[in-house]
Amino acid sequence: MADKIYRVNMSDLTSRLEDVPSKWAGLGGRGLTSNVIAAEVEPTCHPLGKNNKLVIAPGLLSGTQAANSGRLSCGAKSPLTGTIKEANSGGTAAQMLAKLGVKALIVEGKPADESKWYSLHVNSDGVTIQEETELIGSGNFMVAEVLNKRIGDKVGVIAIGPAGEMRMLGANISIKDPDSHMRSAGRGGLGAVMGSKKIKFISIEPTDQMVPVADPEGFKVASRAFAKALIDNPISKALAQYGTNVLVNIINESGGLPTRNFTSGQFEGHEAISGETMYDTIIERGGKPKHNCHQGCVINCSQIYADTKGQYKTSGFEYESIWGLGADCCISNLDHIAEADNIMDDIGLDSIEIPVALGVAMEAGVLKFGDGVEVCRILKEEVGKGTPLGRIIGGGAGNVGKNFGVTRVPVVKNQAIPAYDPRAIKGMGITYATSTQGADHTMGYTITSNILGVGGSVNPLSQEGQVELSRNLQIATAAIDSTGMCLFIAFAALDDATCLPALIDMINARFGIALTADDVTNLGMSILKTERAFNIAAGFTSQDDRLPEFFKEEAIAPHNVVWDIDDQIIDSFWNF
Amino acid sequence: MADKIYRVNMSDLTSRLEDVPSKWAGLGGRGLTSNVIAAEVEPTCHPLGKNNKLVIAPGLLSGTQAANSGRLSCGAKSPLTGTIKEANSGGTAAQMLAKLGVKALIVEGKPADESKWYSLHVNSDGVTIQEETELIGSGNFMVAEVLNKRIGDKVGVIAIGPAGEMRMLGANISIKDPDSHMRSAGRGGLGAVMGSKKIKFISIEPTDQMVPVADPEGFKVASRAFAKALIDNPISKALAQYGTNVLVNIINESGGLPTRNFTSGQFEGHEAISGETMYDTIIERGGKPKHNCHQGCVINCSQIYADTKGQYKTSGFEYESIWGLGADCCISNLDHIAEADNIMDDIGLDSIEIPVALGVAMEAGVLKFGDGVEVCRILKEEVGKGTPLGRIIGGGAGNVGKNFGVTRVPVVKNQAIPAYDPRAIKGMGITYATSTQGADHTMGYTITSNILGVGGSVNPLSQEGQVELSRNLQIATAAIDSTGMCLFIAFAALDDATCLPALIDMINARFGIALTADDVTNLGMSILKTERAFNIAAGFTSQDDRLPEFFKEEAIAPHNVVWDIDDQIIDSFWNF
Repeated sequence: MADKIYRVNMSDLTSRLEDVPSKWAGLGGRGLTSNVIAAEVEPTCHPLGKNNKLVIAPGLLSGTQAANSGRLSCGAKSPLTGTIKEANSGGTAAQMLAKLGVKALIVEGKPADESKWYSLHVNSDGVTIQEETELIGSGNFMVAEVLNKRIGDKVGVIAIGPAGEMRMLGANISIKDPDSHMRSAGRGGLGAVMGSKKIKFISIEPTDQMVPVADPEGFKVASRAFAKALIDNPISKALAQYGTNVLVNIINESGGLPTRNFTSGQFEGHEAISGETMYDTIIERGGKPKHNCHQGCVINCSQIYADTKGQYKTSGFEYESIWGLGADCCISNLDHIAEADNIMDDIGLDSIEIPVALGVAMEAGVLKFGDGVEVCRILKEEVGKGTPLGRIIGGGAGNVGKNFGVTRVPVVKNQAIPAYDPRAIKGMGITYATSTQGADHTMGYTITSNILGVGGSVNPLSQEGQVELSRNLQIATAAIDSTGMCLFIAFAALDDATCLPALIDMINARFGIALTADDVTNLGMSILKTERAFNIAAGFTSQDDRLPEFFKEEAIAPHNVVWDIDDQIIDSFWNF
Repeated sequence: MADKIYRVNMSDLTSRLEDVPSKWAGLGGRGLTSNVIAAEVEPTCHPLGKNNKLVIAPGLLSGTQAANSGRLSCGAKSPLTGTIKEANSGGTAAQMLAKLGVKALIVEGKPADESKWYSLHVNSDGVTIQEETELIGSGNFMVAEVLNKRIGDKVGVIAIGPAGEMRMLGANISIKDPDSHMRSAGRGGLGAVMGSKKIKFISIEPTDQMVPVADPEGFKVASRAFAKALIDNPISKALAQYGTNVLVNIINESGGLPTRNFTSGQFEGHEAISGETMYDTIIERGGKPKHNCHQGCVINCSQIYADTKGQYKTSGFEYESIWGLGADCCISNLDHIAEADNIMDDIGLDSIEIPVALGVAMEAGVLKFGDGVEVCRILKEEVGKGTPLGRIIGGGAGNVGKNFGVTRVPVVKNQAIPAYDPRAIKGMGITYATSTQGADHTMGYTITSNILGVGGSVNPLSQEGQVELSRNLQIATAAIDSTGMCLFIAFAALDDATCLPALIDMINARFGIALTADDVTNLGMSILKTERAFNIAAGFTSQDDRLPEFFKEEAIAPHNVVWDIDDQIIDSFWNF
C-alpha cells in the first residue's frame, strides 16, 4: 500500500487519510515537515493557536533495514523562536510509523473546549482520537509505563510531559525508545505546540507490515557497505565508548566550553563530568556504556547511567545536557546532573534550553552556581508543578533574561546557544547565527573540521572559511535530516568515500529511483531556502542572524577572543 | 546662556556640558530624543546594556509662559518593544530643566559594578553624580518625600520605583508634580533603562533663571490667543470636569471598550467606573475634581481622588488605567482601582501595560476576573517585591502570555493595546499597527474623528479613511510631542482655527525664527521617518505592523466585528 498522509483535525476531532501529493513524494523527515509547514501554515500565525500545525514524519529510509535510520522528524512553527522548526529524535516511533505507511501525520486545529485532553492512536486504518483523563499531569515515564500495560510493550509512544501540557516554551516532544525510556525531539518548544492541540500522547500500533523496497538486492548490498562505513569510523567508536560526552574534555581543551553562563571557555571541574569519568562510573556501578536509541543503530552512543545502588538513573545522557548543567551551571557532580537529566526527561523539557536558562537564572541570583541539589528541586517542584518561577525557567533562557533583566543571555532567535562557544569555535557561531531555527549545533556541526579534523581542517579561531564550512554542513544536514538517518553518520560521510554513495544507493533501491549526489545537495539547499522563505514571511531579517551583543564585547579565556566576524560575512552565508 | 547638552557617562561616572550641534538646535522633546537615539544608539544593542542611552528633553516651549507646555520627553531603545521609544509626562521637571538651560540630558554607559546605585543632581553648572543608598528599594512617594526634605520642596524629581530598579519591562519613569504626587512617562519600560544605568533618581535644582524669549511681546500675544483657544474648547471643559475618564461611557457606548481581556466591546459595570461616577464620588468625599500636573495647564484634567475618609488616594487617575483594571479586568469598583493605581504609581509601573497584563493573567487562571483585592495584593506583594509571579506580571502583557501559554494577548510589538478596541474603532487599529513604538493610543489618537467628531468625522466601523486619519494625526502628534505641549491641545488645534497659528507664533517668538505650518508638518514627518529607520535597522519589518491574530478571528459584541483591514492598506500608511 502506498504511503499516505494521516491528517487529524483537532477542531472538529476528525481524521482522514490522504494520498501523498506528487510534490511531496520524494520528501521525508525534515524535508517533508518543513515543506508541509511552508505550504499550509500562515507564517505570522500564533504558534500556539489553531492555525499552527504539528507535522510528524519518518525519514525516507525509516522502517527499512538501513543502519541508523530510525529518526523521527517533528515540525511546526516554533513558539520559542517564531521560526519554522524541525526537531528529530530516535526511539521506535519513526520505524513503526513508516511500516504503517505513514508518510506524515499532520495535526491541525485546536479544540474549542480547552478543558479536555485527547490521545491519538495510529494504526494502518488511520488515526483514532480519544479523550484522555488518566494520564493528564503525568510524567513521560508514567505515560510509557501505563501505555505498555494498556496497549502492550511494543506500542510506539510520542508524548508530552507536564511542561508540554503547560505550553512551556522549553517543552519537548518525547519518543519512547526500545527500553521504554525517553528520547527527545528537544528544541524549539514543540511540546508546547502538541500541548496547545490538547494531545497528551500518540500511540502507535505495532505491525508486521514491511516497508516496500523496490530493489531488495541492491538495497542489501548498499546497506552492508553503509553499515561497514559507520562501524569502521573511529569517531563512531569513540561515541560507542564514551557517548557524546567524549566531548567535554575535547571542547574544554579547545577553550570553547562555555562556562559559568558563558563567561569562560574552560571549566575547572571538567574532569568530574567528562565522558571518561562517566564511562568509569557506569562500569563501576553496573550500568550500560553502550545502548541504542532505535533498532538498527550500529553506533550505540547512548548509555544507561546507574546510581550508586546500580539502579537506572538516566539514559541518552548527552554531552550538551551534561555541559549545560556541568560547565554552564558549574555543577561538577555527574550524579546531580544525571538526576536533573532524568527529571527533565520525565517532565518533558529540552535539556539544552533549560540548563542554559538555569545558568542565566544563576547569574540573576535566583540560585547559586554549582548548586545541583537546588537545580533538581527547581526542576521537580517549580517547573514540574508550573509555579511562577517554574514557568519563567520553563520558558527558556531568553525568558529568564527578560524576567530578571539579565543582559548576558546566550540565545539566537530566542533559542539557547548550546555547548560550543562561538568566540572560540567560530564556525559554530556562523551556524548559530544563520540557522533557520535559532541557535542549534545540530544544524551545521562545524566541530567536525573546527575541532575534530573530520572533512578537512578549519582553524576555529580564524575568521576564514567558517561561512563555507557552516554552509556546506547545513546543506548536507538538511538532506540527512530528511532520510531518517542519525546525524552521526556525518563523520563517516565526510571521511569515508564509500559512505555517501551507499546512502544514496539505499534511497534509490528503496524507491526505484536514480538520485545522484547532486540531487541530494540540491534537496538540502532547497530545504534551507524553503525554511528561510517561511521565516522571512514571518518577519525575520538579517538582523535576526546575529549573535548577542555580549559575544562581541566580552573576551573569554583562555584564548581571550571575542566574536569578530562581520555582519556582511555572516550574510554571505545565503549566497547559494 | 545658550542651552546645552548635559551628558552623563555612567561607565566612568563623569559628566560634561556640550554645545548643541546645529542639526539639533530646532528640536525639542520627542524630536530631540528620537534624533539623539537615532544618531548615537546602535539599533541592535541590548536595551538594558551599556550601549543604550536614556535621553531626557524638555520641549521647545517648556519653561516659557505658554499654557500646557510642561511635558518632559524621555527616550531610549525600549526594552519592552525593541523599538525606539519616547514617553512624555507632566510634572515640574520639564519646566525646571528648560530654565536651567538643559536642551537634553543624555545618560550613557552603565557602571561595571552593578552593586551600587546613584543619583544625578542637575543645576546650572551641570550634573553631579552621587552614590545613593538610603532610597534604594523605596517607592516613588518616599523618594519625593525624602528629597523634599533633603533638598527642599521645590526640587524637581525624576525617579524610578522598585519596578525600575528590578528592570521590569513594565517599569515607568516617574516625575514629581507640583503637589509632590507622581506623573508617569509610562510606556515602553523606560524605567528599566534608567534602572539598568543604576540611577534611582534625578533631582533638579530650582532656579530663578528664565527661558530667554527672542520676541517677548509677540510671545505674549500668541500665548494669550493660544490659552483662550484651549480654554474655550468644549472638550477641554469636559476633561476639566470628569478627567480623561469621561471616556468610559463614551467608548462603552461606541462598543469599543475592550472588556474581559478583549472578548467584548462593552462592560456591564461601566457606570460604576465612569467619569461621572468618579466626579460624584470626588465631590462627595471632598477630593479635588480639577488638578493640574504642571504649572500653566489651563485644562486641569487631573484630579485628587479621595478615599471614604476623605484622604488622598490617587491622582492623575486616567481613563486608560481605569479602563484596564475596570473593563479589561472586570473590576467594577473605583476604590479598588484607585488603590491599585496608587500602588502602581508608587512602585513605578505603567498603568496601561500592567492592567492589560493582569487581564491576560486572569484569562490564564492566575486570579479571577473582577478580583480587585487580589489585584492590589499582587501589585504590592508580588510585583513590588519582585517575586517570580510579580516579575512575570511586571514584564507586561506579552510576557504573561508567553509564560502562561495564552494566545489572546493584546499587544503590538509586545506593548499592550490600550483602551480602544481596534475592531470597533478601526482608526486606532491603524495607529496601534503602524506606530513606531508599539501599540500606543497617544501616537495617533483617532478617537477625535472616529468617536468625538473633532477634526471631521470618520466612521469607526468602516475600512475607509482610517489610514489617512491615523497618518495625519501621527504626523501632527510627533510635532506636538516636540513642543513640550500636552497632547490635549490637539482638540483645540483640530477645531479652532486660531490655535495652531498661535502655537507656531509662540515657537517663532521664543527662538526668533519664522516657522510655517508646513515646517511643523515636515518636522512631524521627519520624526516619524527617523524613528522608523531606527526600527528597520533594528530588524523590524512590515510584519511587525500587524495586530494579533485573534482580532481577525474573534468578532466582538455589540457590533460583531473583526479586524478586517488588509495588510497592504496598513502598509500604505508609510506612503508619505
